[in-house]
Amino acid sequence: MKNAICLLSGGLDSTTVLAIAKAEGFNVTALSFRYGQRHHFELEQARIVADKFGAAKHVIIDIDLRSTGGSALTSDIDVPKNRSLESMTDGVPVTYVPARNTIFLSYALAWAEVLGANDIFIGVNILDYSGYPDCRPEYIEAFEKMANLATKASTSDGQHLKIHTPLIQLTKAEIIRKGLSLGVDYSVTSSCYDPGPDGAPCGSCDSCLLRNKGFAEVGIEDPLTVSYRK
Amino acid sequence: MKNAICLLSGGLDSTTVLAIAKAEGFNVTALSFRYGQRHHFELEQARIVADKFGAAKHVIIDIDLRSTGGSALTSDIDVPKNRSLESMTDGVPVTYVPARNTIFLSYALAWAEVLGANDIFIGVNILDYSGYPDCRPEYIEAFEKMANLATKASTSDGQHLKIHTPLIQLTKAEIIRKGLSLGVDYSVTSSCYDPGPDGAPCGSCDSCLLRNKGFAEVGIEDPLTVSYRK
Repeated sequence: MKNAICLLSGGLDSTTVLAIAKAEGFNVTALSFRYGQRHHFELEQARIVADKFGAAKHVIIDIDLRSTGGSALTSDIDVPKNRSLESMTDGVPVTYVPARNTIFLSYALAWAEVLGANDIFIGVNILDYSGYPDCRPEYIEAFEKMANLATKASTSDGQHLKIHTPLIQLTKAEIIRKGLSLGVDYSVTSSCYDPGPDGAPCGSCDSCLLRNKGFAEVGIEDPLTVSYRK
Repeated sequence: MKNAICLLSGGLDSTTVLAIAKAEGFNVTALSFRYGQRHHFELEQARIVADKFGAAKHVIIDIDLRSTGGSALTSDIDVPKNRSLESMTDGVPVTYVPARNTIFLSYALAWAEVLGANDIFIGVNILDYSGYPDCRPEYIEAFEKMANLATKASTSDGQHLKIHTPLIQLTKAEIIRKGLSLGVDYSVTSSCYDPGPDGAPCGSCDSCLLRNKGFAEVGIEDPLTVSYRK
């Protein structure tokens, strides 16, 4: 089995990506980050998701992006609530964390090199998204090109590292349908930027609104919402 | 004054780069990393260097690259000693740390974004070097291209981020001459991969050998060696 690295937040998107990587036959090492996010509850979910969906290994990397500042996800800036879908795609929101995907993918590159993996999976997408620059296809392509000049393997045997973005052109509803077809149980995934102390989704941040819209389009109730109603 | 980020290990190369950035009129934020290096002594030197050579701010970022493994600088693998200069450039040595420059530059990118800096300085060079893939010009160019697609600024006002590599085509001797012309005091810089408990250079790792060769070519004694003889 070929090794792959999958970035895993424990959210709806990255959990679906893990299921896709598994379905493609990869032996998956999942990487999560304790980066000072206010929604660190997602790390507990990531652990459950990694275990439940068959990651061979789950690594949580401690980094501190709070010191850099500049984001509502790592500081006291308020997470925007109840925004219209139009305003979500109007510019880069305050929940953007400076260079976060670049930092995450850099660690994935290090692990890929050590494990001899040629494949990195990341759940970025550009349709139902929040305007993050480091989710765009041209960004991912540029990262892949750089990665193939960065490593020891790149200097020798023509090993080629690929960044897989299986969700990049999908709507949230399409992502959910894809995950359901692969048996993903979305009740254990956490998407909210500003969850309650018990992890309950706020229901009104951009991430919750996009998730809710996705489930509404699929025509089923979000199993996560159902589980908190019990 | 324009802000710049300078990656600073406290070694000969990065200290010279800091002096160059200052001489070019930048307000410099120096970034160092506590990444699990066995030669963590260099961080004390970095602090002294940042203070002595006028960095406006010095940030030490805690990251752990030991868990990834795969390098003599972060594990129990022996640091090679007394290698010939020819063998140093024959392949990638065990002191290579997987994706290290990519991770370091990613943090620099985050800080650049938050500080509104368009300029990142890094002391890579390809002449008297140890064969690291992530020191090559084509790697740096690819990182710069990626960086200009990664950030919020890149999506709006055409802000352009530049990765400065003023040493990339210089020999160690030329680097030393450049530094001396800018008033760099090399007695406070630390280059050794495997220093003694008091920080004394081993004199036989690749980094010490290249440094010694540089000072020999310049025709002066290394002030660091002199300081340890006292």
